[in-house]
Amino acid sequence: MTIRVGIIGTGLIGEDHGRKLANVINGSTVSAVTDVNRARAEEVAATLGGVRVFDSGLDLIASDEVDAVLVTSIGPTHAEYVLACIAAGKPVMCEKPLAPTVPECEQILAAEAAFGKRLVIVGYMRRYDPGYRQVKASLESGAIGDALILHNVHRNATVGEAYTSFMTMTDSMIHEVDTSRWLLGEEITAVQVIPPKRTPKAFPHLQDPQFAVFTTESGILSTVEFFANCQYGYDVRCELVGSLGTSSLANPVVSSTIAAGTDATTIPPDWRARFGAAYTAELQAWITGLQAGECVGPSAWEGYAATKVVEVGVEAVKTGERMIIEYIEKPAIYR
Amino acid sequence: MTIRVGIIGTGLIGEDHGRKLANVINGSTVSAVTDVNRARAEEVAATLGGVRVFDSGLDLIASDEVDAVLVTSIGPTHAEYVLACIAAGKPVMCEKPLAPTVPECEQILAAEAAFGKRLVIVGYMRRYDPGYRQVKASLESGAIGDALILHNVHRNATVGEAYTSFMTMTDSMIHEVDTSRWLLGEEITAVQVIPPKRTPKAFPHLQDPQFAVFTTESGILSTVEFFANCQYGYDVRCELVGSLGTSSLANPVVSSTIAAGTDATTIPPDWRARFGAAYTAELQAWITGLQAGECVGPSAWEGYAATKVVEVGVEAVKTGERMIIEYIEKPAIYR
Amino acid sequence: MTIRVGIIGTGLIGEDHGRKLANVINGSTVSAVTDVNRARAEEVAATLGGVRVFDSGLDLIASDEVDAVLVTSIGPTHAEYVLACIAAGKPVMCEKPLAPTVPECEQILAAEAAFGKRLVIVGYMRRYDPGYRQVKASLESGAIGDALILHNVHRNATVGEAYTSFMTMTDSMIHEVDTSRWLLGEEITAVQVIPPKRTPKAFPHLQDPQFAVFTTESGILSTVEFFANCQYGYDVRCELVGSLGTSSLANPVVSSTIAAGTDATTIPPDWRARFGAAYTAELQAWITGLQAGECVGPSAWEGYAATKVVEVGVEAVKTGERMIIEYIEKPAIYR
Amino acid sequence: MTIRVGIIGTGLIGEDHGRKLANVINGSTVSAVTDVNRARAEEVAATLGGVRVFDSGLDLIASDEVDAVLVTSIGPTHAEYVLACIAAGKPVMCEKPLAPTVPECEQILAAEAAFGKRLVIVGYMRRYDPGYRQVKASLESGAIGDALILHNVHRNATVGEAYTSFMTMTDSMIHEVDTSRWLLGEEITAVQVIPPKRTPKAFPHLQDPQFAVFTTESGILSTVEFFANCQYGYDVRCELVGSLGTSSLANPVVSSTIAAGTDATTIPPDWRARFGAAYTAELQAWITGLQAGECVGPSAWEGYAATKVVEVGVEAVKTGERMIIEYIEKPAIYR
Repeated sequence: MTIRVGIIGTGLIGEDHGRKLANVINGSTVSAVTDVNRARAEEVAATLGGVRVFDSGLDLIASDEVDAVLVTSIGPTHAEYVLACIAAGKPVMCEKPLAPTVPECEQILAAEAAFGKRLVIVGYMRRYDPGYRQVKASLESGAIGDALILHNVHRNATVGEAYTSFMTMTDSMIHEVDTSRWLLGEEITAVQVIPPKRTPKAFPHLQDPQFAVFTTESGILSTVEFFANCQYGYDVRCELVGSLGTSSLANPVVSSTIAAGTDATTIPPDWRARFGAAYTAELQAWITGLQAGECVGPSAWEGYAATKVVEVGVEAVKTGERMIIEYIEKPAIYR
Repeated sequence: MTIRVGIIGTGLIGEDHGRKLANVINGSTVSAVTDVNRARAEEVAATLGGVRVFDSGLDLIASDEVDAVLVTSIGPTHAEYVLACIAAGKPVMCEKPLAPTVPECEQILAAEAAFGKRLVIVGYMRRYDPGYRQVKASLESGAIGDALILHNVHRNATVGEAYTSFMTMTDSMIHEVDTSRWLLGEEITAVQVIPPKRTPKAFPHLQDPQFAVFTTESGILSTVEFFANCQYGYDVRCELVGSLGTSSLANPVVSSTIAAGTDATTIPPDWRARFGAAYTAELQAWITGLQAGECVGPSAWEGYAATKVVEVGVEAVKTGERMIIEYIEKPAIYR
Repeated sequence: MTIRVGIIGTGLIGEDHGRKLANVINGSTVSAVTDVNRARAEEVAATLGGVRVFDSGLDLIASDEVDAVLVTSIGPTHAEYVLACIAAGKPVMCEKPLAPTVPECEQILAAEAAFGKRLVIVGYMRRYDPGYRQVKASLESGAIGDALILHNVHRNATVGEAYTSFMTMTDSMIHEVDTSRWLLGEEITAVQVIPPKRTPKAFPHLQDPQFAVFTTESGILSTVEFFANCQYGYDVRCELVGSLGTSSLANPVVSSTIAAGTDATTIPPDWRARFGAAYTAELQAWITGLQAGECVGPSAWEGYAATKVVEVGVEAVKTGERMIIEYIEKPAIYR
Repeated sequence: MTIRVGIIGTGLIGEDHGRKLANVINGSTVSAVTDVNRARAEEVAATLGGVRVFDSGLDLIASDEVDAVLVTSIGPTHAEYVLACIAAGKPVMCEKPLAPTVPECEQILAAEAAFGKRLVIVGYMRRYDPGYRQVKASLESGAIGDALILHNVHRNATVGEAYTSFMTMTDSMIHEVDTSRWLLGEEITAVQVIPPKRTPKAFPHLQDPQFAVFTTESGILSTVEFFANCQYGYDVRCELVGSLGTSSLANPVVSSTIAAGTDATTIPPDWRARFGAAYTAELQAWITGLQAGECVGPSAWEGYAATKVVEVGVEAVKTGERMIIEYIEKPAIYR
């Protein structure tokens, strides 16, 4: 059975996912697209072989040509579309964040719990990166003992002027929030943000780099350096420090070059080069799951928890104080 | 258009490729299988959703449910099936070697040339490995200057008793023959084989490891250490030495673990772990090409040249002398 | 001119330095030793060829067979001996800390300033490690832009029961305090300590690992993970993050071994293996300097500043709060 | 007891060793120098504090101000001076080669055997390099099983016009000849030289790079790529392939730098940067040995064997054939 996916939001990421769902992923086609910018939707529809263009996300969700929905529109629109999918009983993959506010996320949790089974997954693709999976496997094997500290580095070459100091939390560190929760198997219960010296290479309004310390339920620290304008490339690292040893992500390297006095490997230029394969794996897992009648991927609870942490994280950016994070009770379907 | 592939030979590699063509590759299904062992063919057919099982390869090739053929039967049967595909005008991917003897390969070249366009590709998957491609790109970019020497290492954990000293050439170094030709863009014109001290870990009849020096048209050396029973894993390396620098393959590493006094990365256990993704990329390129009406992959000429080199290489194993290699004229369709 | 060194304190480090001053360093001999444990002093004196054993440090300092003094006794005795050396006008190298309390350090600064020229150096050997020097050179070359963050890791295999949570600051992180000041060329003006989850491998009284964030005058963060019982070896790292790139210390590696599925390098077992050569380089620089009539090595001011930071750091361990650090004015001879 | 060393030949290497014997090595001074270029000898003498300049090597050897002799004059003069040292009963360290011809080496062996105890060491400094020692230790520990193949790479940035194709053997690969013998504990019994494509960066008369395959008594292969004009730096590697695993030299790295899309480490620029510490260790071991009345370092037999191999190696360069190497019986004092 081929899963016919409808895409809401045909920006860069929607287009990229659409291309994969049509040409790379086994078991899916793209049957419909929509975008607030109709011309853009039609342009992307054309590259997908002329699929149908809907006037609105709600129309697309309602269409019986659409078996499953991919939400890649801007964050503030996510909740409406995800809730409509749940109402329609249709599987939905929502790019992160599940929703930018906690109340919206809680509404989604309530709706999905009322529906009675999982329909929603959230696009935290790093969980599908082989390096992160090996780090997790290393912990689970017992090879490094008990987890004590997780050190994360997240560096990006440059960002535009629209990028703000709060987005370091809501757009960027939200990835480390998710990977920390997932690797450690615990909720984050506190966060403190400590600003380093600013780079002269950022727009003046931006605190860049940024440094945060997250604490989990059992007291594990997860430190995160985020640097939006590091200039040199896209560099994501983590080292999980255990009581017997450590396990570290390595930048994927398949060759090296020696010339003019140096032995060098290449740093990925951007997230697409670094995590493109993880996005593909995530989409494939979702589609393969749907073919088997299962909902495979980070749940709405994972989406809620990440949004909750970064919401408090934004306060932590403002205050510089250690802020405590508390959660609603986890609905039974997510346990 | 979905390409319906028929598979001749459902051993390990045929089964693996079949699974990918059915479930991983975008644009293909498996429509038919056959094997000298009928029970085995039916077993594999069942895992592919109950596809049709043919009595013979020739029946399968003739079927109008088969758009393209994958030949993964044993080497001595390759030529017959490939020639039948050409006669039927059907695209065929033949696992290496194209054929185990030079006359068979020449027959295929003649048949394909007579047919007038390329139908045949040969399964030299390493050309699709990202590491090898980066090494090639590094040469083509000019970063390392002119190619002068290529050092290759090809190590395998263990082999069974059936593996012979000649197979180091025909089954194993044939990969380095192909990658050398492809990386350097030149034919191999001489080969010498120098036996190192034998490992105590091999069966007594086997010269293991083995060391060969190939020379190309312009005089570039390609050295190859092949070690069938290195015990520790599957380890394929190459360093291309140029007049300005060098470019080297690295074992793909995405994490490292520190414990008990060492900082360690994992060596792939076998060829499947190391080149599984390259096989997938090769199959996808073939299928995507077929959808566009093109024949994408190493040509029958590449298959012929590799078989020619290893045929002389077997003599070189016997004599210990430097043997010269001469080729027929390259038919126009391969230029 | 051979420098005749007298050693006060013949514990492990005093013995080790003594052996080097006698047999490895060019330009020095050991002429005298003393220790609170007379038997131990005589034992070490015997290994040095029967050098003279003094009853007390003050006697040794006064001896005209002693050109320069090495203080390797326990911390609380340092100030008395260093002050006596200054009073005697004799060069002295004092192992870290200069003195365990800030008032003692200030007394030394005052005495040396009154004497009018530098006589005292403090044993911060990491400044002589080639890796640290390359990191510093990389910053100074402009290759990585402006310093913004320094990430430090300092892991030790195991510590005995006598090791306390405050010693993480006074005995261990004091090294990172010194290297941070030296690499960045700025004083540390604030410190916060955040306790991670405790390892089950430490004695219950010990907070281990420990995490600290130091801030410098211009706002650069220096993060330090110290882990006293990491089990796996002695592992010291730093990455200096600049506005254009980063420079990182690498564990010195001169070979690697592949066996049984892994490619491994060795982690140093202890500080002696890791920094033995740095200690030698430090001693040689001191002796070579003395031969030229110069005082070469970290000054008493460096010793004072490090003690000041860790004194506040101990408060930071107690309070968990960000503590501010203020210094006396720097005497002219240290500028 | 301080060893007073007289130096015959104050070229670059003689000056460098002299500086170390005077200022770095513990237990030695330089008491005398001589050189065919008297002005040069006086210049170097001045930098060593005005030591005595002799008119000839034989005068220097005869002087009772000279306890031990360092021969760093040009190769063809080595035998005369070494024989004179033996006649005078004085310890001598001779830079490689012991002598450029086999008969001269045999004369030295005979003289030293007649003298009845070892006086001569030859400057094969790589044996003192920590990386090579770890590779040897790895073999001796059993970790990699039985030695089967040794792969060597020896690359140099550039050489002058005076450098000839035979010198690739007599001046450069002679180092790999010595390390192969030493690592494997066996004599080399055959050699074949296979010329790769020439670099456009060398003078036209020079075969560069060069590739040789040495075979030992038990059949172990030692392959050597030597590249005199690799342009990019000085790069010496070896991988010892055993029946259970491999052990490899790593270029000593103590830091890495990330900038502009690459993660890079530095390749040593020349032999001095790469093996300076090994030269120091070799000199120190020699001097410390002499203080204890022992002769510590590669013996005259090692010098003879290396000269013997490269003498046949030069024939192998000429003929391209596999040449057999046979030795005189080893005198008892070298067993």
